[in-house]
Parts: sequence; C-alpha cells; structure tokens
Amino acid sequence: MENVDLIINARWLVPVTEDQTVLENHAIIIKDARILALLPQQQAKQLYSANATHDLNEHCLIPGLINNHAHTPMSLFRGLADDLPLMTWLNDHIWPAEKAFVSDPFVETGSALAIAEMIRGGTTYFNDMYFFPEATARVVDTSGLRASLGIVVIEFPTNWASSVEEYLHKGHQLHDHYRHHPRINTIYSPHAPYTVTDKTLEQIITNAEEMDMPISMHIHETADEISQSVVEFGVRPLERLKQIGLLSPRLLAVHMTQLNDQEITWCAEAGVHIAHCPESNLKLASGFCPVAELQKNNVNLTIGTDGAASNNDLDMFAEMRQTALLAKAVAQDAAAVPAHNALEMATINAARSLGLDQEIGSLEVGKQADIVAVKLSDIETQPVFDVVSQLVYAASRDKVTDVWVAGKQLLNSRQLKTLNESKIIQDAQQWAIKIGSLGK
Amino acid sequence: MENVDLIINARWLVPVTEDQTVLENHAIIIKDARILALLPQQQAKQLYSANATHDLNEHCLIPGLINNHAHTPMSLFRGLADDLPLMTWLNDHIWPAEKAFVSDPFVETGSALAIAEMIRGGTTYFNDMYFFPEATARVVDTSGLRASLGIVVIEFPTNWASSVEEYLHKGHQLHDHYRHHPRINTIYSPHAPYTVTDKTLEQIITNAEEMDMPISMHIHETADEISQSVVEFGVRPLERLKQIGLLSPRLLAVHMTQLNDQEITWCAEAGVHIAHCPESNLKLASGFCPVAELQKNNVNLTIGTDGAASNNDLDMFAEMRQTALLAKAVAQDAAAVPAHNALEMATINAARSLGLDQEIGSLEVGKQADIVAVKLSDIETQPVFDVVSQLVYAASRDKVTDVWVAGKQLLNSRQLKTLNESKIIQDAQQWAIKIGSLGK
Repeated sequence: MENVDLIINARWLVPVTEDQTVLENHAIIIKDARILALLPQQQAKQLYSANATHDLNEHCLIPGLINNHAHTPMSLFRGLADDLPLMTWLNDHIWPAEKAFVSDPFVETGSALAIAEMIRGGTTYFNDMYFFPEATARVVDTSGLRASLGIVVIEFPTNWASSVEEYLHKGHQLHDHYRHHPRINTIYSPHAPYTVTDKTLEQIITNAEEMDMPISMHIHETADEISQSVVEFGVRPLERLKQIGLLSPRLLAVHMTQLNDQEITWCAEAGVHIAHCPESNLKLASGFCPVAELQKNNVNLTIGTDGAASNNDLDMFAEMRQTALLAKAVAQDAAAVPAHNALEMATINAARSLGLDQEIGSLEVGKQADIVAVKLSDIETQPVFDVVSQLVYAASRDKVTDVWVAGKQLLNSRQLKTLNESKIIQDAQQWAIKIGSLGK
Repeated sequence: MENVDLIINARWLVPVTEDQTVLENHAIIIKDARILALLPQQQAKQLYSANATHDLNEHCLIPGLINNHAHTPMSLFRGLADDLPLMTWLNDHIWPAEKAFVSDPFVETGSALAIAEMIRGGTTYFNDMYFFPEATARVVDTSGLRASLGIVVIEFPTNWASSVEEYLHKGHQLHDHYRHHPRINTIYSPHAPYTVTDKTLEQIITNAEEMDMPISMHIHETADEISQSVVEFGVRPLERLKQIGLLSPRLLAVHMTQLNDQEITWCAEAGVHIAHCPESNLKLASGFCPVAELQKNNVNLTIGTDGAASNNDLDMFAEMRQTALLAKAVAQDAAAVPAHNALEMATINAARSLGLDQEIGSLEVGKQADIVAVKLSDIETQPVFDVVSQLVYAASRDKVTDVWVAGKQLLNSRQLKTLNESKIIQDAQQWAIKIGSLGK
C-alpha cells in the first residue's frame, strides 16, 4: 500500500479529455499537489492509504473552472449602475468611481470579494486585468487560488500609473516578484486597440516573445470600436493588429463580437485564442460572438465573466450554460456547442490559451490537483440521465460543495477554508458606503 | 393591538408596483391568507401582535414568481436528450418516451419533482400545459402552490385522450372538479396552430368566452412553423388566428420568436399577452423574441421556463435575468428592459395575463400573501447598491430562503414544508431507470 495525501471517491468524474469520457465510482489519488492516479474505487482501496479521504457519493468531480477574463476588483461596483447605455455607464459612473476610489486597499478588498465568490462557484483559476495587481496578487497568494495577473497597459494616466513606461515598469516588478510563485503568473494586458498605440503594442510583442508570455486584450468588443478604427486607421482593428504582428498563439482576444469571415480565418491561421464573455456582451448590448462558426474553424474558444460591474457576477457555471445556449440560437442550430464543448471551453481550452495545458485544465495523471465537486442529488438536478448535460444545463454554482487547488482544500461543504468570509463582507460594505455617497 | 396570523419583518421589500418603489425595514402583516398592511417595522410593533413572526434582516421580500409557461411533468425527461436538432429531439426521443411512459402516476411524480423545484426557486404560480392534468392538480392541491392547469387540445391521440371531444371532455371534468378550489384554475390550451384546426379553435373561443377563461397556445415558436403555414394556409399563423378571432386579451401567446411589425401591431391592438421563454428558445435554436420592441408597443410581456426537457430547469430567476440580458443584445440597447421590468414580467404582468392581477402578482394590501424571501447577505450579492439589480442580475434561486402562498409557509430556511423531498427524488429515480432503458 502506497501512502498518499488525499483520496477522493466520487460517484462520477468528468476528466474533460478528448474522448469525452465519464467515469463512474472512481477514486482520484493525490500526492504532492498532483494527481497520482485515477482508478475504480475498489482498486484504489487495495493500492493506496491516505492521510485524508473524502467520500462524495452523490457528486461529480470536474477540473477547476478557469475564468479567462475578469476585472476582479470591480466586484465592489456590482450593481452600482445598471441598465444604462455603455458610454453613460462608463463616463458618468464607472470612470468617476474608479478615479475616486481605486487604490491598493480598494483592490485588495475587491479581489478578496471576487476570489471568495469564485472559489464558492468552482473557479480555481482566473485571468485578471486591473490596476494595482500587486494587491490582487497578495489575495491570490493567501487564498490558495491560481491566477494570471495582467501587466495592464493603457495610454492614459490612472490612479495606478501615469505613462506607458510606468505601467510596464510596475507590471515587470510584479512579474519579477512572483517569478517563482507556484500559482501566480503574469500576462501582458494592453487594454484595447483604441487605447494603445502601435508603438506600445510592438514593444509588448517583443517583450512577450523574449519572456515567453501570453498577451490578453479586449478586441472587437463593440461595433463602435470597429467604425472608429476605420475612421482613424482606415482598417478594422483586427487588420491593424495583424499588420503589427499581434495575431499569434500568444494572443488571447477578449470579446470578439464583431467578426467577418476573413477575420475568423485570420484567427484560425494565426492560432489566436478567444475569451468569450457572453453575459457581459448581452448586458452591454455589445453583440454576439459567432461561437459555433469559430469552433467550426478550429479557433480555440475559452470563457470569461468580465467584471462584476457588467455581468453582475463571476459565475462560470452561468457562463458555460449561456455559452452553450446562446451559440445554438446565434448559429440557428440546436446541435451547436454541446454541453461537453462548453465544459472544455471553461477548462482545458482556457489552460491551452495560457500555455498551461500540461499543468491544469483536465483531471489527468501528472496534472495539478485542481478539483471541483458538484452535488447532483438535489431536486434541481434529478434525475440524472447525462452527467455532463446536468452539469452544464441544470446544475448551478451553488451545487459546488468542495474545491481543491494543488491538492489543498479551499472550500469544504461550501465553507471557505482560506478566506474570512464575514471579514470580506464587512470590508466590502465599508467601501460601498463610500462609493454610494460619491457625488451625493 | 390587532391580532394577526403572521408578521414578516424584512430589510427590503419590493412590492412591484408602478412607482417601482423599494421599501426598507418594513413589515408585512398577514391575516386570513391576505396582506392586511405594509408599514415601517416600528409602527407594526405598536399596531399588531401575531401568532408567528419572521425577522428577515438580511433579506428582500418580493411577490411570488409566476412561471407563465411550463410542461411540469417533463421534469422526468430532464437531460434525456440534449444538443440535438429539434425534429430529432422530438421524433427520436421525446415522443417515443412520452408514448411509452406518460400516465397518471408518471405525471404525478413529474409534477411533484417540478413543484418541489419551483417552490425552492421562489415560484408560487405556474401555468401548465400537459396530459393527465388531474394528476398535476392533486400535487398542486397537496403542495399549497397555485396553478393554471391547461385544458390541452391537440388533433391527434395521446395516452391521455384520443379525440378533440375527449380532450375537451376531460378538461371540462377537471375544470368542474376544481371550480371552487382557491388555488387551482384551468386555462384552455390548444397546443399550436399546426396541431389544431380552425373548427376546434372556434369552438374553444366560444367556450372560453362563455366560461370567461383565458387561452394559452404555442405561437410562432420557430421559422419552420411560419413557412409551413404559408404553404398550407397561404398566410402566417398569426394572420390565420386573427381571422378566426383568437387575438384578444384572453390570449396568452407562448414563444413568439418570429414577429414582423404588422404582427406586433396586431398583438398590441388586440391586447394579446405574450409568454416569453428565452432559455428554451435559445436551447432549441428557435429564435429571438423581440422583447424590447414588444414592450415599446405596450404588449404585456410575461416569462415562462417551458418544460425541463428543453431548458433544463424551472428557474424563474435565471429566466428573469436571461430576459433582461438577451433583450438588450437583441435590441442593441444596453438600457432596454431594466431589472424592474424583468421582475414585473415575472410577477404582475403574468397575473394580468391570467386575469388574476387583483389577487396576486404584487405585494399590496388586500392581495393574497404569496411572498418570497431572498437573502442578499452572501458573498455573491454583496455589496448592495441597488436591490432590484441585485435580485435580477446577481441573486440566483438558491438565495430564496422562505416562501409563503396564501400566508401558508411552503419553504422554511430552504426546507420544503408540504412535500417530501427524499420521497420525490426516490420516485423520480425509479422512473428514470425505466425511461433510461427505453430502446436498449
């Protein structure tokens, strides 16, 4: 008998592999933060003894979900200004609030609120784009979650930095500080084609190649962005980015609601990844990303929540479901984006987009033990004919009972293990009092 | 001091009235199944003593949600056949399963599963269309919920009836049996324009007028339905129904994803009500109901889940949210269908469509005490800037803690009071074993 750190026995296990297999009554064996074995429970009993064992006989285990686009500290603006036209929302509400409040302590509280929400919802990795990422990094470190934190670059001053040089300098400091951290990565995050110049983008491309880092950027979010670019540059944004040399497997293009056939081909040929944010795109009336069409062209699709100010939650179960539902209606094909595909987008596809698919994104031997348990025995998910359908179309994030990252338990029977929930809520409410009184 | 049955003290209360008011720290006073008063908690203490008092200091009270289109027994087919083209789904899966299993005991278990799910999700009224409604009626009676049960009519035989005469006869028996029941109503439910003849529809219109009853019908669900009608009748279905005289305030038209300007005007002029089923329309790739456009034309809009076989849940919080999000993207207007509008559609608008707006649909003095408590103090719904935004965009049905219908508590701290949850799940699993083995 080999002694291991943890054995989890589960009724079902969806590893999210190419064969779309569903395992029943299997055990997952964890040692030194990684998956040592996946095997029938009877065999596991004969081969392994463990320091801890969890019996989840009404649950399905899945890989931790990856929220591939977020602005986590904006959780403190959740519901501050809804149902408004995009520019009124930004000019009259979000930007003034950001100018007044965004700071290291604001970001620390906002990130803690967001990370607590994400852990409770089965998300184990997030790709973030916001100011003061050093504050977010501290919460990621404490919480036990994983993240890619953006080296944000934008050509106008904010509370965090006042020039491209300063954004990059602070971002590189973050990168250097966490270079050897097992759960914190950095990602170049130029804001958008309309807020970053060609010169800056060229510098970022050079840096990213030297440092072997990915690049994440809002691209083709709205129709206005396209028409502005045509006026200013004579071409649509994606063509401009192609000319600069940004289209490559390093690029994670966020939103992409406005795409013609030529642009879909460019993305496919260049190996560009896409972070689809369906609920944000609906709520801000940005448009419909042609998900099924991109999938047909073998473009790697992933899913993000965007910030809570435009969603208004960080719920990857809701986004998976929305992705599968909306893609069918947009493609006029009820067979488009089946449930397992949506689960792939929220796990292994996202890992691939970040260059991390050897480490996370599926439950396979040798990978990090980032595992989520979803209870399927409640009224809402009965009966069970098809486990993956149940996960994507009927389950919701409140069915997540337990979460492990690198074999460490972050959620136990819906209780946070590494974060102080009541303290986070108290801190958030203190900020809300200040934010709510702005301009009053 | 007047003695009453129940006092509920709540942090917030959204009555869903025209002024879109939100009350804070109010009490709702209940006597003889009805709302006797709504007033500040301090005043309530001085005026009323109660047999029971609930203090919900982290909660918002809203009117019970009305699921305005369901096929509740189909919950037993949840996840049986997903991600398939519509006709494959119907011909190869749903219809054979219905033929093999639909019966009085099937409907009883399916309705119990559905009703348990709806109560746990804050739904207090549903408008149902299915066979063996007498079995559903028994569960509605026991559970304490309210419903409109369809007098289903379709021009081909099913397990329930074999001719139009038999459908109507059995439906009228149901109507007569529950004529004086305080919570069970009946509604004429001819299936769809393509499954019911002009002659039958004319008879139903005459009956409905004589008996002062509403009529619910699937109309313009898919583009195929339209083109078939043009071939068979020379006109689109809605024009045919207009010629027959069906368009009136008695009609609740379900789905309506395919509408031209002329048809929207007809609906507005005739006072037709619409049951929008956004998640079903997405999942079956039926199309997009022009919600914002209908709203602009003052058509009364309501919301339904459709059956769990095409959704796959009976979650009115998800449908409210989907309605508000999707309408914005379809109208290309981020200000379309604000949160309070979506809540109106799920409550007072639906009550109006069923002729019940004097009794239910809002929290107002004199109305039935159908009340739902939603907890807003969890991580997922913090901080609270705007209660209605929080209800529609951030809360989900798992935040529903308590539900009352006619002043009787059906859910207490998420525990069902009138139904046996584990028995329902056991029964559902027994049916699932049979259903899953069909054709194997």
